[in-house]
Amino acid sequence: MRILLTNDDGIHAPGIHALWRIFDDWADIFVVAPDTERSATGHGITVHQPLRVEKLSFANPHCHGWAVNGTPADCVKLAMEELLKEPPHIVISGINRGPNLGTDVLYSGTVSAAMEGVIYGVPSIAVSVTGWHTVDYTVAAETTRLLCEKLVARGLTPDTFLNVNVPDLPRERIGGIQVTKLGSRRYQNIFDKRTDPRGRTYYWMAGEVHDVDAGEGTDIQAVNAGAISVTPIHFDLTNYSLIQEVSDWLGRESSPFATKRKA
Amino acid sequence: MRILLTNDDGIHAPGIHALWRIFDDWADIFVVAPDTERSATGHGITVHQPLRVEKLSFANPHCHGWAVNGTPADCVKLAMEELLKEPPHIVISGINRGPNLGTDVLYSGTVSAAMEGVIYGVPSIAVSVTGWHTVDYTVAAETTRLLCEKLVARGLTPDTFLNVNVPDLPRERIGGIQVTKLGSRRYQNIFDKRTDPRGRTYYWMAGEVHDVDAGEGTDIQAVNAGAISVTPIHFDLTNYSLIQEVSDWLGRESSPFATKRKA
Repeated sequence: MRILLTNDDGIHAPGIHALWRIFDDWADIFVVAPDTERSATGHGITVHQPLRVEKLSFANPHCHGWAVNGTPADCVKLAMEELLKEPPHIVISGINRGPNLGTDVLYSGTVSAAMEGVIYGVPSIAVSVTGWHTVDYTVAAETTRLLCEKLVARGLTPDTFLNVNVPDLPRERIGGIQVTKLGSRRYQNIFDKRTDPRGRTYYWMAGEVHDVDAGEGTDIQAVNAGAISVTPIHFDLTNYSLIQEVSDWLGRESSPFATKRKA
Repeated sequence: MRILLTNDDGIHAPGIHALWRIFDDWADIFVVAPDTERSATGHGITVHQPLRVEKLSFANPHCHGWAVNGTPADCVKLAMEELLKEPPHIVISGINRGPNLGTDVLYSGTVSAAMEGVIYGVPSIAVSVTGWHTVDYTVAAETTRLLCEKLVARGLTPDTFLNVNVPDLPRERIGGIQVTKLGSRRYQNIFDKRTDPRGRTYYWMAGEVHDVDAGEGTDIQAVNAGAISVTPIHFDLTNYSLIQEVSDWLGRESSPFATKRKA
């Protein structure tokens, strides 16, 4: 087994080390991760400046690591195209410090790395713990290993990965695993407007989370109820249900370009 | 009418100016765009450094502009939360230089700004021309205006925006408008590996596009056939068809956490 690990908290973050340890006896581990924290980078890739890669050395001959001055998606691309001799059997991104629930997944570097994995046709998992401070990654690491074994044994359709959120609770209070859909959340009072010592305005983005849809079956509801949430996520963003409707309201007669095609 | 314009090519790019001109007589225009090019930023937001905003002045009292040292998604958030007194009736992102087709939309700053618009509940359009050089934005601007009028008159479900790609062809060779689904593309030979003057390796990300799915009904096929592609895109990434399957393969008996919940 070859496992590619990445994250958006940076290669020195404790979450990725917890993954490393749990898979140590099971697979060759390839860590390709950002050299510093890159959270909220979304699915950004680095095309306007060069990427640098630093090889790390490990005592364990089954561990290989590279730090990259790029985003999580850059890391997966570099791993697949340049750094690994053979493709991995699975890509795991995390363990992220903080939740990636509902609409959050659009902004998440952690999630984008798993999406990049399935774009390459490799089964992938993104995993986060919902706590921000003094986080215990043990349950999340064990859950990831369990899911990994299932994923390798059973497979998924090639365009879909699993987004996992583990509540920040003691093991004995974790309420099972629920397979969920994404809920919907927004942030309120997003900007903290300040004045710098020279009198100029600047803004910090922060904000309080507001759950627009935390209803039955959502990832948000599962985590709020103390369960581990597992959401199957795919990268086809087409809203198929609207293709006919938009076609109807465009109509042939309404388009200035509809009849101008030359054979 | 109030229209919010943004892009990822930067506030000085010709594509956004083409939009501005075409809506000039129809609406109050609010331009909130990155101060420099931010393409391929995906849905990144800026949370680790402060955002700065520079107000621009215009002769036309119906035009208002701000340059932001952030991503397209940052721009929409700042516009909605801080800069505009009232929300816009529509968000338009573009006109991007270069296509945003198929899997490209995941990496696109242009597309992420339109997605951010619908996250705020505002009807939104992302628009791109497929050419990279000596691009004529006239047809794309006229198409955007047509779609805008339709969108305002007819509406869409609140989670869905339109992703528009206009072929880089003379007007008389444009083959109508097709409502499409996203195709699928990958890039090959992505990294150009070089050595700097001090002997250290670096990588440029580039690559040649390879269309994995450019079949009937896709945006890629439409544009290749000379038509304008309009794809309805939503931000719910859940793969609903797999919720039951993943639930089955997880099963109650297989989870070490399934039965440990305390009441």
